[in-house]
Amino acid sequence: MNQRMLTLSPRPRGFHLITDEIEEALPLAQLSSGLLHLQLQHTSASLTLNENCDPTVRGDFSAFFDRLVPDGSPYFRHDYEGDDDMPAHIKSSLLGTSLLLPVRQGRLGLGQWQGIYLGEHRDQGGARRLLTTLMG
Amino acid sequence: MNQRMLTLSPRPRGFHLITDEIEEALPLAQLSSGLLHLQLQHTSASLTLNENCDPTVRGDFSAFFDRLVPDGSPYFRHDYEGDDDMPAHIKSSLLGTSLLLPVRQGRLGLGQWQGIYLGEHRDQGGARRLLTTLMG
Amino acid sequence: MNQRMLTLSPRPRGFHLITDEIEEALPLAQLSSGLLHLQLQHTSASLTLNENCDPTVRGDFSAFFDRLVPDGSPYFRHDYEGDDDMPAHIKSSLLGTSLLLPVRQGRLGLGQWQGIYLGEHRDQGGARRLLTTLMG
Repeated sequence: MNQRMLTLSPRPRGFHLITDEIEEALPLAQLSSGLLHLQLQHTSASLTLNENCDPTVRGDFSAFFDRLVPDGSPYFRHDYEGDDDMPAHIKSSLLGTSLLLPVRQGRLGLGQWQGIYLGEHRDQGGARRLLTTLMG
Repeated sequence: MNQRMLTLSPRPRGFHLITDEIEEALPLAQLSSGLLHLQLQHTSASLTLNENCDPTVRGDFSAFFDRLVPDGSPYFRHDYEGDDDMPAHIKSSLLGTSLLLPVRQGRLGLGQWQGIYLGEHRDQGGARRLLTTLMG
Repeated sequence: MNQRMLTLSPRPRGFHLITDEIEEALPLAQLSSGLLHLQLQHTSASLTLNENCDPTVRGDFSAFFDRLVPDGSPYFRHDYEGDDDMPAHIKSSLLGTSLLLPVRQGRLGLGQWQGIYLGEHRDQGGARRLLTTLMG
């Protein structure tokens, strides 16, 4: 198993395609078959797979999740870091903070329209650390 | 690692038990202990584990998720393929498109009441491709 | 692969930190790098990673998910075991019943603020079985 910590540069609140950044950072080309595990080291961001082509999908993701978990909901008690604090924790668990992806013939074994989204759920999330484990 | 692409036949919109189909398609009987990874190659369907006995659970899943992400919500901008297009993408990420399942003594290491659901979130999703990776 | 079935003692409905219990039960110290898979054997509880310090986060999780999937929603048909039956199944799939966690230098490779939550979604869930698989 090959473990490596990556640092993702700060991004604005929303959903961001990071497939290319992941593929370029890791030695996938050496593997005929394997699995890649990605584990965010945070509780206010998320990883998910979704449509990799039309940016309006990422915008609609933001619109949906911001309606589902509104900033500053009056019943939240954990708000030390602002109105986006607790909603970011909940979005992080709804979408998840890890992915396990097949590797096939030196590339991620994903469908034609699948890409890796980083969900940045804080207004000022900063850089995000990602622990990667490559098997195979 | 043993990788194999399966094709799931087209199913109507809703939630469908596919445990038997998966177990029959793969050489689990050879493994005393291992892990099975399932990765849908799509962004408008999902995989999840849930109750494997009473079909009303699958119906209630449809009822819940169709209320949570209504077709044709006016704020969605990505609607090229119809009112069920963007809601299918969101359901796919809420539930996830992959599972990692333990294998134990030649069978899936699941609880007595756990089964694999395929969530088909499009009205006409067609056949679905599933990349399987068996380890152990 | 080292598989072991753990039994988690009964807990009240809500979200509970179980990181220490998991780390103490498993031989992680032997591993310089690896992966740990946790699979609940149930369809009315869940596992997720989230904030490991402030207990109000776990309270806010309960408040959010109980509003998102209210007990006794009149359109649910699967209610054999009471008003919390179907909501527990849905919360289980929204959050998921498994985790795959990196192991690094003999410990879980998680961020400083990440901990493992057990989501107990039944009023009387009882003891919960967890099948663990350690690789590496």
